[in-house]
Formats: sequence, structure tokens, C-alpha cells
Amino acid sequence: MGSLTARHLLTIEDLSVEEIDLVLDTALSFKEVNERTIKKLPTLRGRTVINLFLEPSTRTRTSFEIAAKRLSADAVNMSGSTSATVKGESLVDTAKTLDAMDADLVVIRHKMAGSPQILAENMRATIINGGDGKHQHPTQALLDVFTIREHFGGFEGLHVGIVGDISHSRVAGSLIPALSMLGAKTTAIAPPTLLPARIEVLGAEACHDLDAVLPELDVIYMLRVQQERLERSPFPSIREYATLFGLNRARLARMKKGAIIMHPGPINRGVELTSDAADAANNLLLYQVNAGVAIRMALMYLFMGGESDEAAA
Amino acid sequence: MGSLTARHLLTIEDLSVEEIDLVLDTALSFKEVNERTIKKLPTLRGRTVINLFLEPSTRTRTSFEIAAKRLSADAVNMSGSTSATVKGESLVDTAKTLDAMDADLVVIRHKMAGSPQILAENMRATIINGGDGKHQHPTQALLDVFTIREHFGGFEGLHVGIVGDISHSRVAGSLIPALSMLGAKTTAIAPPTLLPARIEVLGAEACHDLDAVLPELDVIYMLRVQQERLERSPFPSIREYATLFGLNRARLARMKKGAIIMHPGPINRGVELTSDAADAANNLLLYQVNAGVAIRMALMYLFMGGESDEAAA
Amino acid sequence: MGSLTARHLLTIEDLSVEEIDLVLDTALSFKEVNERTIKKLPTLRGRTVINLFLEPSTRTRTSFEIAAKRLSADAVNMSGSTSATVKGESLVDTAKTLDAMDADLVVIRHKMAGSPQILAENMRATIINGGDGKHQHPTQALLDVFTIREHFGGFEGLHVGIVGDISHSRVAGSLIPALSMLGAKTTAIAPPTLLPARIEVLGAEACHDLDAVLPELDVIYMLRVQQERLERSPFPSIREYATLFGLNRARLARMKKGAIIMHPGPINRGVELTSDAADAANNLLLYQVNAGVAIRMALMYLFMGGESDEAAA
Repeated sequence: MGSLTARHLLTIEDLSVEEIDLVLDTALSFKEVNERTIKKLPTLRGRTVINLFLEPSTRTRTSFEIAAKRLSADAVNMSGSTSATVKGESLVDTAKTLDAMDADLVVIRHKMAGSPQILAENMRATIINGGDGKHQHPTQALLDVFTIREHFGGFEGLHVGIVGDISHSRVAGSLIPALSMLGAKTTAIAPPTLLPARIEVLGAEACHDLDAVLPELDVIYMLRVQQERLERSPFPSIREYATLFGLNRARLARMKKGAIIMHPGPINRGVELTSDAADAANNLLLYQVNAGVAIRMALMYLFMGGESDEAAA
Repeated sequence: MGSLTARHLLTIEDLSVEEIDLVLDTALSFKEVNERTIKKLPTLRGRTVINLFLEPSTRTRTSFEIAAKRLSADAVNMSGSTSATVKGESLVDTAKTLDAMDADLVVIRHKMAGSPQILAENMRATIINGGDGKHQHPTQALLDVFTIREHFGGFEGLHVGIVGDISHSRVAGSLIPALSMLGAKTTAIAPPTLLPARIEVLGAEACHDLDAVLPELDVIYMLRVQQERLERSPFPSIREYATLFGLNRARLARMKKGAIIMHPGPINRGVELTSDAADAANNLLLYQVNAGVAIRMALMYLFMGGESDEAAA
Repeated sequence: MGSLTARHLLTIEDLSVEEIDLVLDTALSFKEVNERTIKKLPTLRGRTVINLFLEPSTRTRTSFEIAAKRLSADAVNMSGSTSATVKGESLVDTAKTLDAMDADLVVIRHKMAGSPQILAENMRATIINGGDGKHQHPTQALLDVFTIREHFGGFEGLHVGIVGDISHSRVAGSLIPALSMLGAKTTAIAPPTLLPARIEVLGAEACHDLDAVLPELDVIYMLRVQQERLERSPFPSIREYATLFGLNRARLARMKKGAIIMHPGPINRGVELTSDAADAANNLLLYQVNAGVAIRMALMYLFMGGESDEAAA
């Protein structure tokens, strides 16, 4: 296998197109490992992986923790409520402390955009961004493009619509540039108040009318509505949002033949997806979850594995 | 060794008498493993066990976690406060998500009766009920009957009294049918307001007078008083409860020769047990705790182990 | 290697000078293990280590957890908010419960001075005090003296100043006797209200004027200011404290040539240390953190390892 140029995954732009391909190819082999009865490889034995989750998240933390354990790494969880941040320690000091404990890889989730960069600048360890504020969530983008590639065989000629609060979505923040790099056409679909001013710079076209573009989409990617943001202006009411931008039975019927639905989870049933759409046969959200473990194994392997193999030989 | 018919342990009724015997026999061998310096078997290497504890519990979670680790499984904890339930994910979606991560076995504790059934209906993984609301707690019943069997050699002719809030106790909800299946005579001892209407259906006789039946009991099983329920009608005051149904020095003296005390822990000293009763030589509550790890190892082994042995061979 | 006389590390006085040397020598070899790519030894395979942290602490818990995992022990975390203490279980009952689960070693952090002693009196397992109230924090003292010994080669003729709230500091409570045993001269530097009445008994001289003694110190050990205690009498204001007892650029310039700064972490930048002092090249706080993992590995090895080696042979 090849290797990655960057030492960290802070944003999706840290990877070239070729490197994204390498991550996806590697993930494919780990996906097969995960289908075995004995889902365990000795690859990262003796490596210390820290899951530093300073914002609540069980799904993503669990996915990274399972990935680390299936590669035989020592995985240690540090969560927000019990962390030293309670005592007022700065993120830089946390970084240096974990480095002094000889951590090999740190996954960070933090409400502050740019926090993974702070760790990377202050540690020898490899940093993987597990979601930083409204900025990026690159492992989500990788599992999303893995899902699209495995389903369609590639990105040429595909049209992906991303629907929701694009302005505040770290999922969109990583996925749009990833799709742009890989050659898919991307449309960001949202009310004007929830679209960034110059979305074209990221690599997507803007659209305010889901129904107009719906029949052309090969992938309709429904962003999660952040309930906690719902009552704040400029967000429309839940009801208005669901009516204009939710995926429901009527819109399912108008989807292009062969098109798929994707969602980063967890779902708000009745908001961005009705149960018809959540449970539709062409909704690949569980495939995405499954791919997520394999993607995270692939990244850990590519960032740490080669050296380990050599040392273990 | 034999194997279990059911794929899950949702209620104690999922096991036949022969299967309960198999679980207890298997636990006995794991109890011996736990007495060794090196308490570790490779049996479940590469298996993913999720402890999904959506209601606070350290003792039971720790018991399951230790059991999984001693069998070399990868154990991952998901607790309530940090879980995706915070984000409004439904239990069905949680189930499907964990399934997509290729979990092999999920232990669930949840305040909602029937929640393990929901997981079982939506996952390929094996589900073990770690306590669901006021419904059942089958691994507790298994460690309890293990304790009784090891102490008395069997159940024939034994009279077990279960004392406390039978109506709201998941411990009683599993233990009464287990004892009934195994052939012990069971009496449910409580004030009328804390006894279900037709306790005979479960397999126990009703009794409102602890002192009347006390001298006949071989096992006096004291349920934990839920402090948080104490001040609510129809619960008597703590003082009244302790006077009428607590085990104290006077009642200890009136116990049948050779009788034992049991308790699911943690104890409320001064409520259901005075310290005399809590620390009495014939109180087997620590034996129960010890048996608990072995019982959980046995269940994990029987549900997952055979296939693993084969694959590992 | 030798072995330890005591079965537990409750206070630093549980170790003789020779045993402290043994712990430091052992830690030195584990420090080298931690610099390897594969930081893993099979020494404590099959041993169960419980991290019972009933007071929030991520740094210390993480250090112990990493130490246990690098020695291949099964490490289980129990934290305060989810523990059985929520249900009113007493510490004695918790101790007996963990013992019944065949725990081999329990690390306890608790706000109550003397709590590790309670565990030791009620368990067969080895107990390590991870910080008990305002009493002791012996593993911190060991990593501190390790750091001093590695830097200076020994303790003869060294003058260590410990600055801060000596009265309420468990770090000082273990470090002062350790330095006294090892032969260093120790001065406790604090306002009169924050010094215990008879500090000489512990082995330190009292001093209320940092500037007077500063140029003589080989080690200036800055205690962490407990922010939560700051607003309570008799604590001076943060500003007054920082002015009189904080380490700032002016005081850095007056330090003895070759002198070092130490701190138990996490730092309050701008309180006990300005950023100049926090980031000074002669501030060894990250060396201390690094040594901490090795010290904890050494203790686990010395308390449990010999027997394990034998059994594994």
C-alpha cells in the first residue's frame, strides 16, 4: 500500500485525490475484516489512541473506539465533562500533556473551529479531526464518498444535492470540497439565510428550491437539523423547514430512478426526513455508518501502520 | 458444552430449565478462571461487546465490562448522558447504528420495559437485558440461582422469601419465574400496596407478614428499597418500612438454622438491612457479586463462543 | 528486580528510601518502553485494574489507564457521576463489591482524606492512592522526585522551594515527606494563612517571602491555585497572590543558574505562572507528565508483576 503525505487529517484538503482513493481502497479491505467473526488485526498493537471528545458524541466516538480496538491499539477516552478543561487548562496545555504521555494519535471533537490545528501545532502525535465546530468533519466526508463510490462505481457525471443548514454544517464543510475534488457536481440546497455567501468557492452551486432540482439528483444528502438551533433566527420554524426542505413521501416519488438518500445521522424523524424517507430502501445511512468504522481503521492504519509493521517484523 | 436455543436473553423465560443449568455449569468453570492470577481467556477475541447503559449503573456495567475483557472481547461503553439519545435519536435508530458497526453483543440497561426487545427486533447482534425498567433483570436472576444452587446443592424443598417492593422490582420480575422453573417454593413478602395483583401467576405466594413466614425460609432475599420512590404514595415511610420489613438483629435470631440472606446490591444500610444483617456471615451478597461476573462470562461464551472457537481453530 | 514491602501505596510513607529508589529505577526502564513505537508489555495480562475516580480528573486517570494498558492489564474506569455512590452505597460496600469482582488493583481518587485506607482495610486488592482530599498524592510525589533525580542526579545539597497553598495541597502533603526522606532541603513558601502550623514536622522550613529565598532554590515547585477556593477567606485575591507568589518574568531572571521549575499541572496561566514561566525552557512540567506514566507502570509492575511473571512462566 502507499502512504499519506500529511501527518494529520485536519481538513479534507489535507488529502489529494490520489490519497482519498488510497484511503477508500484501504477502507474496503477493512470493511471485509469487519464482516468476519474475528474482527481483529494486530497492526497497531502498542499504539496509544486518545479519543478527546470535548463535545458530546457517542456515535462518532464509538466508531473511532471500535476502529482503534479492532486494530489492537490501546484506546483511551477523554470526554468533556470530566476533562481537565474543567480545571481551566487550555487546549495547548492539553495537547502538550497528551504528547508527554506518548500518545500516538489523537482524535479530537471540539466546538471550536480550528482546534485540531492547535493540537497539530503542539504535538508530535497524529491528529484526526472528529468534527470541529461548524468547520469540518473530514472522516464523515470520507465515509460519504466511500459510500457513493461503492454504490455508483465512481463520481463522473454524478449530481449530488446537499440539503440543509449549509452555513453551519461541518459535514457540508468537508463533503463539498471532497466531491469537488472527486469530480461530482454538487448543489447546495437551502433557504438563502442558511447558505454561505460564496458557496461556489467551495465547489457547489447554490439552489433555494429543492423541488426544482430534485429529479436531477443522483444523491440527495439530507443534513441533520440541529434542534438546538431551530428556534433561533434566521432558522425557519421546524414545520416550515420540513415542508420546504424535508424529504417526504411525495418527494421520494419524484426522485430520479436509481438515486440514493444519504444522512450523517442521527436522524430527526419528522424533521429533515419523514419515516418513509428514513426507512426507504435507497437510504444508505446504515451503509454510511458501517463504512465509517472501516474509514477510521484505514486512516489509523495509513497514518501509523507502516512504521508499526516494520517494527513488528 | 451445549448451546442455547434463543439468540438473546431478554427475559428469564428465554431459557429452559436445562439451559439455566447449562449457564450455571458454565459459570462455575469461569468462576474458577476468575480465581487465577491470570484471569484471561482468548475465547472472544475480535468480538465487539457494547455496554449500552442508558440508566446509571456502575456495578452491573462494570461486571459486564470485566466479563467481556476477561474473555478478550473488545468492550465499548456507551452511557446515557453522552449518548446519541441526547440528540433525539430513537432506540430503533440506535439499534440499527450499532448493528451497522458490526457489534456482536449488546448489553442494554434502560428505564423503559421492553427496550431489549426493541433492540433484538432491529439487530443481528445478540442482546442481553441488563435491566429494563420495572420489568426484568435476567442476569441478576441467574447469578442469584447460581448462588442458591452452589450453597444448597439444588432447589428441591427450598423455600425462598423475597421481601420488598415486588411490584416495581425487575429483580423480582426475573427471579420469581426462575425459582418457579427450578422447583423452589417462593413467597413474595410485602405490604399489599407493593404486591402485584396476581402474583401467583408468576409463581409465588403472597404474604404481608414477614415475621409469620420468616422461620420457614431457607433464603431471605431482601430487595433494595428505591430511595427515590420512598416519599411517594403508596410507599410507607422508611421508618415504617424498616420496622415491618427490614432485616434486623431480632429477625436474624429468628431465621431458620442454615438459612441465608441475599441482596442484589447496593445496600441501603438502615433501611432494608441493618448493619447486623448486611454484615452477617450468612449474607451471601458478595458471593452473588462474584458469581455475577462468571454468569455474564458464561452467557457471552454460550451466545458467541462456539462459533469463535471454530473460527479460531 | 526487588519488591515492595507494603501491599498498598496509601501514603508516600508506605515506601522506604530504598523502595523509592527501586520504584524510580523501575520507572526509568518503563520510560524507555514508552519511547518505543510498540509501547506494550505482556506483564500484567489477565489482571484487572479499576480506576475509581470519584472526583473529576482526566489527566491522572488517563495516566493510570495508559499505564495499565501498556502493561496489558484489563483497565476499567468507574467515575463519580455514574457510580453506585449515586445510589448511596458506602465506600466500604464499594470496596467489598470490587473485591468480589476479583479486582487486582484499585486506583482511587476521592475528595475524602483517608479513603484509600478504607479500601485497603476492606479489600484483598492492592490500593494506590490517586489523590485523597487535601491529604496525599503519592504517585505525584514519586514522579516529581523521579524528575528531580533524573535532572540533578540525586538530592544531596539540593534546595527545593514549594510555593502555594501548602495547607490544602495533597501534592505538598506527599512531596515534602518524600524530599525529606531523600535528603533534599525543602522550604514551604506561602502566606501565613496557607501554611500549616507545624510544617517542620513534615520536613520543611517555612517561609513567607518568595523573593527572599528565590535565588537559593535549585527547584521552584509551583503548586496549582485551586480557583474554586480563590474567593474564600483566608485566600488572598488572585491578583495579590500572583503578585506576591506567582512566577513571572522578573522572578525568572532572579532564579539560580541551573535551577528548574516544576508544576503538578494543569496550569493556571496568569495565576501561579505567567506564560513566560509556563513555557520557560527550564520548566520541566511536561517531563513530569511523561514520568508519571512510567512511575505508574513501575508501581503496577512492582505490586503485581513478580507473581504474574512466575505464573506466566
